[in-house]
Amino acid sequence: MKEFELIQHIFKASSMANIEGRRDILLGIGDDCAQVNVPADQTLVLSMDTLVEGRHFPYDADPSAIGYRAVASCVSDLAAMGARPSFFTLGLTLPHSDPQWLSAFAEGMAELAEPIGLLLVGGDTTRGPLTITLQVHGYVEAALIKTRSQAKLGDDIYVTGVLGDAAAAVPIVTDEIIVANDLYDYFYERYWRPTPRLIAGMALKRVAHAMMDISDGLAQDIQHILLASNVGAVLQGNQIPISDFLRDWQPDNALTIALTGGDDYELCFTAPKSTREEISLITQTLHLPCCRVGEVVETGFSIEGYAGDLEGWQHF
Amino acid sequence: MKEFELIQHIFKASSMANIEGRRDILLGIGDDCAQVNVPADQTLVLSMDTLVEGRHFPYDADPSAIGYRAVASCVSDLAAMGARPSFFTLGLTLPHSDPQWLSAFAEGMAELAEPIGLLLVGGDTTRGPLTITLQVHGYVEAALIKTRSQAKLGDDIYVTGVLGDAAAAVPIVTDEIIVANDLYDYFYERYWRPTPRLIAGMALKRVAHAMMDISDGLAQDIQHILLASNVGAVLQGNQIPISDFLRDWQPDNALTIALTGGDDYELCFTAPKSTREEISLITQTLHLPCCRVGEVVETGFSIEGYAGDLEGWQHF
Repeated sequence: MKEFELIQHIFKASSMANIEGRRDILLGIGDDCAQVNVPADQTLVLSMDTLVEGRHFPYDADPSAIGYRAVASCVSDLAAMGARPSFFTLGLTLPHSDPQWLSAFAEGMAELAEPIGLLLVGGDTTRGPLTITLQVHGYVEAALIKTRSQAKLGDDIYVTGVLGDAAAAVPIVTDEIIVANDLYDYFYERYWRPTPRLIAGMALKRVAHAMMDISDGLAQDIQHILLASNVGAVLQGNQIPISDFLRDWQPDNALTIALTGGDDYELCFTAPKSTREEISLITQTLHLPCCRVGEVVETGFSIEGYAGDLEGWQHF
Repeated sequence: MKEFELIQHIFKASSMANIEGRRDILLGIGDDCAQVNVPADQTLVLSMDTLVEGRHFPYDADPSAIGYRAVASCVSDLAAMGARPSFFTLGLTLPHSDPQWLSAFAEGMAELAEPIGLLLVGGDTTRGPLTITLQVHGYVEAALIKTRSQAKLGDDIYVTGVLGDAAAAVPIVTDEIIVANDLYDYFYERYWRPTPRLIAGMALKRVAHAMMDISDGLAQDIQHILLASNVGAVLQGNQIPISDFLRDWQPDNALTIALTGGDDYELCFTAPKSTREEISLITQTLHLPCCRVGEVVETGFSIEGYAGDLEGWQHF
């Protein structure tokens, strides 16, 4: 079997390629195109992310962890729209064909993709420096989609989960800094296995106004909402959710890391004050950690109780 | 303006991002996801292709030519399904941000994408070795889609255009071989500006049985149809369409190059003998060069009048 066919075989054989019981997927891997019948009452949303070794994840990392995180980071964009995951494609550029690496990578992807109903339907595999491009697709009712431009004056601003762990984890998972085992384990998981807030996105879409996922740091990402919605914001520094691990390990820098660190893939959303009770009910029912961190104002951007530097992480 | 924003700006500003008048595209570039409303009577087809510099196109090539060819090669997969192009995404990994390069690249893409109604709706830009991942999307009626598995015993086998020019062009466009100006100009165009057979695919979908595009050489690609359809084929070596340029330049190797060379992005399709007249009418109306090159048989694969080596071009 030729190398190229082997790769196709691994992905086709993986249970992700099992399209039985999926009425929406008419053709999966193996023809010139995949074919999808989008449910009649739904619109299609899609997002593409490219991950380059040494830039978006460390060299020589565990392929299973790479696979899991690649799906998680991309799927987070679906969560931000309030969409239900449906299928994805994979553009994989590899320095050489290594069946063990590929199997582990495919398993890592499947570990997250399968339980959320995200089916691999196609892609391309080429030789070159390790680069992973994923495109994820989801379904959402046209009227319920959450964009960045829907924030309204007076809205509360919320974030899910805790912020900063993934950014703080980088020197730990790359072994630049050696820490105690429990710290290592915690941050390793936080870096490699972020939890895309899919259920939260779907549950909140009927209540929230604007919504987006935090991939480059709250302080930077929220600007996209403010710009698109033509509003301002005041955040409360002491309300920004931070894990005990991060606060204990970096007491002086925790807030800066939480404000500027990316890769946690939590959601930031705005909602009218009148929905506070409803949001509280949703987050309690879903056991979803969710903090009110500020308010939408007419113009400008400030963080009360914070005087640090807000240079966000730059992709390019 | 930061580099990353500059890139977004170039693509957003390009006329490809003009979604006015497009009822199917609800959200384009600029949010967490793009949003599409697939027309009610259509299914969505999609195909992803990755092109790596130095492997799928020469180093230091004209960025406008790279952009054109990237769209052409990917769109060819839509043609093979009989689909109408609708929108695409771009995962672009670049060693550095060069506005001139980017503008030329975007122009090259737009030159082909615009007239066929293929709108750029999203993507990702990262730093790294030059790698281009395109995902193209099209619409086709569920019942009319052309797959590789629909060939029937006794079908005629056709190919569009002429074969082998793009493969023969490689040493010419990389300046490994110096040829006369007219030859250079011809092969340069054939390599960099293949014509995806979109109109042909849409016109033939009501008549053809199996269809696919030829990207790795006819002799290799037709095996996919035979395998998927569980049939065999006999091709007539002297019916394989070859350009006068290729035949004059490489009289001894022309047929081998035509059978094994990829990247022409012509269509190969099968159709029942009863449709010969109809196919002739379609191809004449469209001024579409189209040759009957063989027949679907029960089993096996042979090429009458050819005794050469059939090692196809390997991607990986």
